[in-house]
Amino acid sequence: MRIGIDIGGTNIGMGLLNSKLDMVYKSEMPTEKEKGYQYIRDKLIHAIEDMISRAGELGEKLDSIGIGIPGIADEEGDKVIFCTNLGWSNVPLGRDIRARFQIPVYIGNDATVAAIAESALGASRGYANSLFITIGTGIGGGIILDKKVYSGSHGLGSEIGHMIVGENFYDCNCGNRGCLETFASSTAMERYVRWEIERGFGDSLLLKDIENISAKAIFEGAAKGDRLSNMAVDRMVKYLVIGIANLINILDPDIIVLGGGVARAGDFLLERVRGLLPKYLLFKEMEYGKIELARLGDQAGIIGAAILGDYRQ
Amino acid sequence: MRIGIDIGGTNIGMGLLNSKLDMVYKSEMPTEKEKGYQYIRDKLIHAIEDMISRAGELGEKLDSIGIGIPGIADEEGDKVIFCTNLGWSNVPLGRDIRARFQIPVYIGNDATVAAIAESALGASRGYANSLFITIGTGIGGGIILDKKVYSGSHGLGSEIGHMIVGENFYDCNCGNRGCLETFASSTAMERYVRWEIERGFGDSLLLKDIENISAKAIFEGAAKGDRLSNMAVDRMVKYLVIGIANLINILDPDIIVLGGGVARAGDFLLERVRGLLPKYLLFKEMEYGKIELARLGDQAGIIGAAILGDYRQ
Repeated sequence: MRIGIDIGGTNIGMGLLNSKLDMVYKSEMPTEKEKGYQYIRDKLIHAIEDMISRAGELGEKLDSIGIGIPGIADEEGDKVIFCTNLGWSNVPLGRDIRARFQIPVYIGNDATVAAIAESALGASRGYANSLFITIGTGIGGGIILDKKVYSGSHGLGSEIGHMIVGENFYDCNCGNRGCLETFASSTAMERYVRWEIERGFGDSLLLKDIENISAKAIFEGAAKGDRLSNMAVDRMVKYLVIGIANLINILDPDIIVLGGGVARAGDFLLERVRGLLPKYLLFKEMEYGKIELARLGDQAGIIGAAILGDYRQ
Repeated sequence: MRIGIDIGGTNIGMGLLNSKLDMVYKSEMPTEKEKGYQYIRDKLIHAIEDMISRAGELGEKLDSIGIGIPGIADEEGDKVIFCTNLGWSNVPLGRDIRARFQIPVYIGNDATVAAIAESALGASRGYANSLFITIGTGIGGGIILDKKVYSGSHGLGSEIGHMIVGENFYDCNCGNRGCLETFASSTAMERYVRWEIERGFGDSLLLKDIENISAKAIFEGAAKGDRLSNMAVDRMVKYLVIGIANLINILDPDIIVLGGGVARAGDFLLERVRGLLPKYLLFKEMEYGKIELARLGDQAGIIGAAILGDYRQ
């Protein structure tokens, strides 16, 4: 059996998967990132021991452990190089877990891990070349080429949220201006609406609850015909489409899967993206990759982590 | 032996290569694109027959033919799908040549073919993952992953000149606004200088020969300290670096090779690109791909075409 672990900034999800990739047991715990690396590592070790007991009760043994993190890890799965969200820099997570259990341990970026899950069991199942774009407070990406993870020669690849696609009115956290995630994330939509309100946009449903302007509220406003909400959705869709067209011009995958919190806007978002994309494509008469919504939701992180080893080159 | 054919808008270069990839015979002829596909095809067939005779004189036979075109071809090498420069659309070049000589015939995009040549014998030799950026009147790209050509699931990939990287003052030929080639090609540099002059920039060496403003003249002006020339070079370098940083964030190759006419500015360009790039990188402390100039010059098209078959997946 395999364990998949999805380490997020707030919660850690864990699942025990059998050979058919059914999740036979699942658990969740708070990350408690403020308690530091060693505390979290020891908590993970206890939880893994518990899952090994459960595997034993089923007459099975544990074959491997995979971990998804909101950051980047080395190719060998020894250490987490950067994980800003958790305040980790060069922590030997893989090495420590492997030393304790003496089985293969893999670590990957959370968007990459979700890309794997969608490729194995979700929207991009059966396709050789797929991209996964996770759209939440930021934008992350996972690249699957020839049914393997592609993360580049130094592990820096698939950071599509930091592709520069235009000029914006504020800087990205990374220090650059014009990153895709400053146009098309939930944060970007909220900042754009606040910026228009500061510049004097006075007539919008969003003004009624100005403390709680969120991507969800903006999509709901747009569906009700609110003009500012629609401006924000149109702007988000325009730049998301530019990002997708750029990725098609570079990688030309079989399919691009949209996931993450913002993708919960569902068909409302999907139809606008599909409608605008042809305008930005270079070869308008040629077949290009499908655009689909993610199918696995919150489970993707655990499932993808569990099978990460199968997708490494 | 193999034949490599480099079909350009003005000239066609051909070379006969032995098993060590030495070019044992070379020829060149005008393209005469105005005479149409069948005329050019028949001219190519005659030239190939001539090279087969020469191979025979050396006691050798011809094993394959590879052709580079300024457009896109299907995966099978049967037909050229688009070649705007030559006015070709769905012409059966590969099928016709194969039917005549009964040996494998490969067709690829000219930037992809140059990427292959640099990967086999030039600046990116020995690296698994490399990108080639050809900077001339437009910008083209070639992607080599795991020592094979990567051109995507539908042959649309590696069109990096049409990656949207900002807002510009004029539209690209493709209909979009903000494509990399409208900021960083020779045409882009010339248009930018003319635009500044139209807007009243009155003091520049470039004004002395306003009919012949070229990327070469602009680079020469910049080396002499001319302010408008330096503004144009700085703008070109800024957007080229944004394009390179985007490609590192997506593909993270071992090496990026700069070729084409504008890259003849040589170290003057290379040093500026290398100097500015770290500012735009996401993980500033991590190792990233080298940036180098192309080494094979005009030969790259012929050599890369000759070995195209070896680099197909």
